[in-house]
Amino acid sequence: MTKLSTDNRQHKAKLKTKNNNPKSTIRNPKSKKSMSRIYIEDLSKHVGEEVAIHGWLYNKRSSGKIRFLVVRDGTGVLQCVMVKQNLSEEIFNTFDALTQESSFSVTGKVKAEPRSPGGFEMEVSDVKIIHVAKEYPITPKEHGVEYLIDIRHLWLRSSRQHAIMRVRHEIIRAIREFFDNRGFLLMDAPIFTPAACEGTSTLFATDYFDLGKAYLTQSGQLYGEAGAMAFGKVYVFGPTFRAEKSKTRRHLTEFWMVEPEVAFNDLNDNMELAEEFLEHIVQSVLKNRQTELKTLERNTTFLEKVKKPLPKISYEEAVDILRKKGNAFEYGNDFGAADETIISGEFDQPLIVHRYPTEVKAFYMKRDPQNPKLALAMDVLAPEGYGEIIGGSQREDDYDALLSRIKEHNLPQEAFEWYLDLRRYGSVPHAGFGLGVERTVSWICGLEHVRETIPFPRMIYRLTP
Amino acid sequence: MTKLSTDNRQHKAKLKTKNNNPKSTIRNPKSKKSMSRIYIEDLSKHVGEEVAIHGWLYNKRSSGKIRFLVVRDGTGVLQCVMVKQNLSEEIFNTFDALTQESSFSVTGKVKAEPRSPGGFEMEVSDVKIIHVAKEYPITPKEHGVEYLIDIRHLWLRSSRQHAIMRVRHEIIRAIREFFDNRGFLLMDAPIFTPAACEGTSTLFATDYFDLGKAYLTQSGQLYGEAGAMAFGKVYVFGPTFRAEKSKTRRHLTEFWMVEPEVAFNDLNDNMELAEEFLEHIVQSVLKNRQTELKTLERNTTFLEKVKKPLPKISYEEAVDILRKKGNAFEYGNDFGAADETIISGEFDQPLIVHRYPTEVKAFYMKRDPQNPKLALAMDVLAPEGYGEIIGGSQREDDYDALLSRIKEHNLPQEAFEWYLDLRRYGSVPHAGFGLGVERTVSWICGLEHVRETIPFPRMIYRLTP
Repeated sequence: MTKLSTDNRQHKAKLKTKNNNPKSTIRNPKSKKSMSRIYIEDLSKHVGEEVAIHGWLYNKRSSGKIRFLVVRDGTGVLQCVMVKQNLSEEIFNTFDALTQESSFSVTGKVKAEPRSPGGFEMEVSDVKIIHVAKEYPITPKEHGVEYLIDIRHLWLRSSRQHAIMRVRHEIIRAIREFFDNRGFLLMDAPIFTPAACEGTSTLFATDYFDLGKAYLTQSGQLYGEAGAMAFGKVYVFGPTFRAEKSKTRRHLTEFWMVEPEVAFNDLNDNMELAEEFLEHIVQSVLKNRQTELKTLERNTTFLEKVKKPLPKISYEEAVDILRKKGNAFEYGNDFGAADETIISGEFDQPLIVHRYPTEVKAFYMKRDPQNPKLALAMDVLAPEGYGEIIGGSQREDDYDALLSRIKEHNLPQEAFEWYLDLRRYGSVPHAGFGLGVERTVSWICGLEHVRETIPFPRMIYRLTP
Repeated sequence: MTKLSTDNRQHKAKLKTKNNNPKSTIRNPKSKKSMSRIYIEDLSKHVGEEVAIHGWLYNKRSSGKIRFLVVRDGTGVLQCVMVKQNLSEEIFNTFDALTQESSFSVTGKVKAEPRSPGGFEMEVSDVKIIHVAKEYPITPKEHGVEYLIDIRHLWLRSSRQHAIMRVRHEIIRAIREFFDNRGFLLMDAPIFTPAACEGTSTLFATDYFDLGKAYLTQSGQLYGEAGAMAFGKVYVFGPTFRAEKSKTRRHLTEFWMVEPEVAFNDLNDNMELAEEFLEHIVQSVLKNRQTELKTLERNTTFLEKVKKPLPKISYEEAVDILRKKGNAFEYGNDFGAADETIISGEFDQPLIVHRYPTEVKAFYMKRDPQNPKLALAMDVLAPEGYGEIIGGSQREDDYDALLSRIKEHNLPQEAFEWYLDLRRYGSVPHAGFGLGVERTVSWICGLEHVRETIPFPRMIYRLTP
């Protein structure tokens, strides 16, 4: 690179002829090569070049003859240096007009600057204001979370929310990559389901033309099983809905779940798949989202340990841990959030707990041939108190056993005839699990509440914006 | 490879010692290396090896001392050859017991066989029946589509449905790849929305605790706009819902839509993005799903032409085409399906139609500064009569203009305050579009009806299975 003073002379010479209107730059970003508009994420390819950045004012500060505009364009932030002697008064004074989150186009030469957050700086040669923002409702002072969720559409512009959303995206990308690379077929299960299979109390219902009520899916698993019989290995991935009146920090009414289902897999295969899956997700985030984890001040010690094999204990062994810790847990109950924290606290990796009493698990789970009081179920508990992130099982593949289970649970047999068909026509052992995306984001980002893990959270008391 | 006779002798020698139980093979697929269970898609890596395939009977035929089992395992089909003199009577007779869709494990040596559909064959050394299927309701004879949709969970096992679902998966994979590689942030928009923004007639509603009604989203675009202001470039991708009482071959009540939204893009940028996007999707399918397109007997002549630049005409020019064709189309109306077929019939590529009269387009579209009676809208019409697959526009970025549009349309201003905020705090030009996944699958696969493009279609008269 040439020296600063030389650069400045070049800028001045150019300024006389260009006076580019930001509108025309926007409409024809490729019209002048030297002035091409780029994203901050691509700065490293343009060091020494004169480029334009379109974005919003993130911050500004002044020290007399030098002023600094920090612009964010959604892909990063960049400090832009305005030197008074190099700029016309009109351009230099745009600094005063720009309020927080005002939109503008800034042009200048890109410099490598190791001391800057992103590693680059811009020597400003021109600034065009696009829109001056009204007084922005989010200031550097502390705001309450309820206030921030009320303006979630603006809160998403903050660096912390950026980091969370980018980790969320990476988790979803890694999930799909994992299954796509292993030949799993993506099978979108229906959102509208016909029967209130497990009672209506936790289901959202809607009128469905002349067909009565439709219920919003709580899980695509049953459809995934049909898919596994057709395609061998599938994954269902979409939003699911729970009308539970839960106000805990782990509950959303609308959340995303991925559910692989594999023909010929047994419980052991299922646990192995879950181990490899979790390792892939966590290691992908560690590899590709270090900057974001740093922004979130996430201690990654435990995340780095998410590698196959993960510890595996039976429900019975988990009960023993609770009792040794002085907990009066009764064998046969399901674990609550507090129990899960105690159990998983004994391990520094995600913990697989398998073989639960049938009473606390769903009707479709296969029973352990060694002990029919146990279901061939498995849950994965995240470390650091984040609780269950995966629930799964080997499925009942015997027609008669499944039918009697449906009757025992007083489920409407007619609604399950199609599901029973999977046991009539070439039934095979099969297994699968579901991973909740938002709880996984919460764990990997180290968040206290799942409400920050999705762009627009929906909770029992929250339906806006 | 050694000769067949030698191979057979080796098989016999091995048979004496193995007698492997399929259950134990399933539970420990890796216990005996030579007997490892593989998927049909991986056969090419195992030529000459003794392997096990777990699957379902797709077809069988006999010619005396040689019998053929065609097994499908979800990843492909394989012809397995049973030679009487090489097998025990018990094993040879499993042929008779296996009915269509019965599940079994078949072991044998993999041979390259260019005359076989997948390029391989298996010399059977063992067969273990897992489950004998009842009489399968789908036979080679022609069935009506209504009958087949009633048993959609079984219909998905047929080769034609396999091909469609694999093309669907590839389209979705290519969509995500396109945006991920260009630095777009995935932004999952909420399914539950608070206000019936455009009237309740085409919205599904559900009771939402103490907050009144929630409505199922028809589009994530408005949320995508908030995302574009935060992240620069985003894509929303999820299921959307329309309660329209439409029974056409293009309508589902539940369908998947991808909606990119980009800050600082104008209508031209938007059209360019759509062109590159469609090229990427179609060329990815042509590259990675040739086998499936052949199964579907798809003539790919038109698909091969989907490359940038695509033809672009204005609404006015489209009206001229209709009139030249003798159609009494009235300027100012929206195009119907028949009109779209006539217009797009003049082109052998997807056609972009831009600048529609404002009356037929949504309130949030920006007006053309050259002619305020026109909206800066764009639709993409697929060739071969498949109609609209993309709809998009530049958005209104001026606060006052948007507010007066909301009032003109008698929309509840309060519900749009958050959306107006995007024009209060650093408004910028921006544009985006939505692509319907099912219509795209229908077009690329050359299907007559969208009901085959999704695993479990939902229509006005169809909520099961």
